[in-house]
Amino acid sequence: VRAAALELGYRPDMAARGLRTRRSGTVGVVVPDLANPVIPPIVRGVEETLWSAGMACLLADTDNDVAREAALIDELRSRRCEGLVIASAARLSRAVEALAREDVATVLVTRGIDSGALPLVAADDAAGVRAAVAHLRALGHTRIAHVTGPEELSTTTRREAAFREAVAGDEGGGAAAASRRAAGAPLVVHGEAFTVAAGERAAASLLAAHPDVTAIVAGNDMIALGCYAALAAAGLRCPGDVSVTGHNDMPFVAQAQPPLTTVAIPARELGVQAARLLLARLRGEAVESVRLPTRLILRASTAAPARA
Amino acid sequence: VRAAALELGYRPDMAARGLRTRRSGTVGVVVPDLANPVIPPIVRGVEETLWSAGMACLLADTDNDVAREAALIDELRSRRCEGLVIASAARLSRAVEALAREDVATVLVTRGIDSGALPLVAADDAAGVRAAVAHLRALGHTRIAHVTGPEELSTTTRREAAFREAVAGDEGGGAAAASRRAAGAPLVVHGEAFTVAAGERAAASLLAAHPDVTAIVAGNDMIALGCYAALAAAGLRCPGDVSVTGHNDMPFVAQAQPPLTTVAIPARELGVQAARLLLARLRGEAVESVRLPTRLILRASTAAPARA
Repeated sequence: VRAAALELGYRPDMAARGLRTRRSGTVGVVVPDLANPVIPPIVRGVEETLWSAGMACLLADTDNDVAREAALIDELRSRRCEGLVIASAARLSRAVEALAREDVATVLVTRGIDSGALPLVAADDAAGVRAAVAHLRALGHTRIAHVTGPEELSTTTRREAAFREAVAGDEGGGAAAASRRAAGAPLVVHGEAFTVAAGERAAASLLAAHPDVTAIVAGNDMIALGCYAALAAAGLRCPGDVSVTGHNDMPFVAQAQPPLTTVAIPARELGVQAARLLLARLRGEAVESVRLPTRLILRASTAAPARA
Repeated sequence: VRAAALELGYRPDMAARGLRTRRSGTVGVVVPDLANPVIPPIVRGVEETLWSAGMACLLADTDNDVAREAALIDELRSRRCEGLVIASAARLSRAVEALAREDVATVLVTRGIDSGALPLVAADDAAGVRAAVAHLRALGHTRIAHVTGPEELSTTTRREAAFREAVAGDEGGGAAAASRRAAGAPLVVHGEAFTVAAGERAAASLLAAHPDVTAIVAGNDMIALGCYAALAAAGLRCPGDVSVTGHNDMPFVAQAQPPLTTVAIPARELGVQAARLLLARLRGEAVESVRLPTRLILRASTAAPARA
């Protein structure tokens, strides 16, 4: 019978089976912007892991818009997705918080919520930032600034907190440190978005206000490319005058000029782990947040300070 | 009643409704590799257009594997997708050809099949390649080579045919042209894949065999970055010794060193048009293939030949 069915091109009707078993066999995958180069490898990891387990991915792109995120989550639930993987969460997202309260199987990936009410798979950004600061310090930099991403994202606050700690730890003494403390250091400038344009604007204001900065830890690689542009506009060379580090190791930052020293995150593996965590949750297992290791990739955008 | 339903958090059950109406409200979106930077903006265009029309996207990534493509298409059909948007088609893909025979609502995007049996939304690559050759010719180049992508993809054969025509058209006369014809010109070297590594290998063999080449039209931007690497390895400067053009205008080729002159395709718009074509097809309208215009973006990887 099976051979005959195969020959006739019979296909099991998954929709009818889903209604009988109350299982749709689909998971909603919510992303902030597929054009942001850090997102596609995460989605690949989620997608390949779920397909292997017989689950399909409904993809939804919020375009970084909280209202759209809420509407898409609603729509995915009305389509009876068995669970959600969400890469778009803002720290205070009400639509995401509601999923925890209503006990919808949900795993967050890369971006967490302040309440910590949902499991999160993310890179160990704090260790990455500490490694970047330690590298710059070993090169001889003492005047290190941080250009952040948008404050509504956990990736920003986590990296910023790690930066403040790392810099406080290594600039604790001496007259220079005392004067810096008086000026309100450590030096942190907030970008409005994880974009080249936002990075350029923030870095330009940093360089104008603090011409003695010799190194910038950028909130991510897009911000770092914005720092490159701001340095060029100010007639400064990288790394000759100012060193720059990024975060994520996006495709092609190795081809940037200069090739970018950056904190690599295991993007695809974040997706794989998020999908595995969701599958475990759907089997009724208890799941916990996971931090995956980062790695500092040394390229040509960092060097010893010339102006020190 | 409606207000009470809303208050109680009632959500229409799309799965049950789908079984009643025989409509799943989903479209399968098949991509060759979400990590290929040209693909995410296409998927975004598809996704946003379908969501606006009340349809959800089931995302499937073939990882450039024909067997996986066939299995995923089967799975998407068993999930009763109302239609398919396919960005992964090889020229001779049997699984994709079968969709035409079995009258499954399908639109191809960017990559077509030789039979032409399914509607395709693609950029006007031929016009883009002609513009690149005309630009190099206007700069004074006469020894122009083409490094292609893999021959199983329509994007490769279409760009290669346009290159051969354009070069034959502008190198028709004189002793140099006669000797080149004797040597089997126009100069075309085939890369095995649309990757930096494949581009580097192909360009290295080109440069070794034909040291008089002063310009390369690369099959896409990844191949172009591979040409950069091969030139650097051969001790040649771009554009000082050899000019290079790309295709697609991927994110960040403007930040490459040198910034890449390339043929821009309207990637997101390709996705939007493919989704619209599928929606028209689902409404029972007749649909035809569409070519969207390209644009040559002049940056710093092309200049007048120094060795002419």
